[in-house]
Amino acid sequence: MTDLRENERIDDLEINGFRIIQNPLFFCFGMDAVLLANFADIGEDRDVIDLGTGTGIVPLLLAAKGKGRSWKGIEIQADVADMARRSVELNGIQDKCEIVVEDICNLKNHYQPGSFGAVTTNPPYMKDQAGIKNPNNSKYISRHETSATLEDIVSMASYLLKTRGSFTMVHRPSRLPEIMALMTKYRLEPKRMQLVQPYVDKPANMVLIEGIKEGGQELKLLPTLIVYEADGSYTKELLRYYGKEL
Amino acid sequence: MTDLRENERIDDLEINGFRIIQNPLFFCFGMDAVLLANFADIGEDRDVIDLGTGTGIVPLLLAAKGKGRSWKGIEIQADVADMARRSVELNGIQDKCEIVVEDICNLKNHYQPGSFGAVTTNPPYMKDQAGIKNPNNSKYISRHETSATLEDIVSMASYLLKTRGSFTMVHRPSRLPEIMALMTKYRLEPKRMQLVQPYVDKPANMVLIEGIKEGGQELKLLPTLIVYEADGSYTKELLRYYGKEL
Repeated sequence: MTDLRENERIDDLEINGFRIIQNPLFFCFGMDAVLLANFADIGEDRDVIDLGTGTGIVPLLLAAKGKGRSWKGIEIQADVADMARRSVELNGIQDKCEIVVEDICNLKNHYQPGSFGAVTTNPPYMKDQAGIKNPNNSKYISRHETSATLEDIVSMASYLLKTRGSFTMVHRPSRLPEIMALMTKYRLEPKRMQLVQPYVDKPANMVLIEGIKEGGQELKLLPTLIVYEADGSYTKELLRYYGKEL
Repeated sequence: MTDLRENERIDDLEINGFRIIQNPLFFCFGMDAVLLANFADIGEDRDVIDLGTGTGIVPLLLAAKGKGRSWKGIEIQADVADMARRSVELNGIQDKCEIVVEDICNLKNHYQPGSFGAVTTNPPYMKDQAGIKNPNNSKYISRHETSATLEDIVSMASYLLKTRGSFTMVHRPSRLPEIMALMTKYRLEPKRMQLVQPYVDKPANMVLIEGIKEGGQELKLLPTLIVYEADGSYTKELLRYYGKEL
């Protein structure tokens, strides 16, 4: 019997029976996390760490897909991390998946350099103070760089990764120059990228990007992913993603 | 009567009666230049300089479209520049459009800093020594960074531009991290970008990018441009480009 708190619900992830506990009053996972887990190219021999894991959606999806052999999820908000930990137990993967309540900036106290083969992150998209403040503090923290900035995340990813380890992130295309500059600065050479457009004639609102630690210069583009047909139904490409891989 | 040399031909640009002299033994203009001229957002009060102008295709297209008030084209190959100069005369715009035979790296000897409101470039895509050497030397120079590197071009563009002036370039997406890093380094902040895919399910093979000198951080994406339908005919979007603007 799963221990659910007030307002919590269990959602089916529709891959190998995996489920997740969410609370609509907090931040619920979106297509960003699903696309990130699809895009991530992580072999089953990799130890993975997810920075800013929230309810643990990315480690859960990766575990469900067999991407990696162990997963750690780092979350600064104790109440959200508690939900994630209960989801890990709900799926019976507590021997391979650990949720850690910690500030991303403090991870050097926990892990040696090069401890991981893959880092994933679906970080807050907005700079602190940018955009409209969310009156719900937990949602605000999930969406804004209150604790760790993009540079904190990229530099920590580089510290945590082995040589040739992969860094996979979903973010806003408007910040692409900064993202590429930081990845280059911290030797996570951008190697693979995909834009995500809501419609064929609308600009991208998400970018998926992979950097390889100490990789050589040469970015490979994937075809731009279109989410919806003109009538609002999912495109074949997106359905293929969900059907085959999710 | 236009003075044509051996193997030269006159092609109609199909905008306001503009024409260009080309020689198939040299490098003939491609869709890259057409898309660059379409993408360029240059007001009619701007003095424009095109770096590595070849046969002058970009200044001619910009002049035909009324993008800018004066145009200079810089070309290191004297024989190619001679063709460009005769095309300028053929179109009767020699009072507003000048072709200069010079190495991009030497332009500080000709122009004061901040002399231009817009810089355009369709530079060689390949690093010197990369790829297969083209036995025809003129084509090799047009495709490889033999004389000026990407960094030479971006740094010179920054020197030539006024504050808020625009730098517009077409290049290969595989070099995007380097392009963005160099633009940021030389304070040409990337502000507008469009990927160009041959087909909806093939990765982009061109990127159009605009930087604004001393601009603030915020990249605006345009919807990815798809060139061909599955049957090989042009897409509506591309036909619209040609029909309305070219």
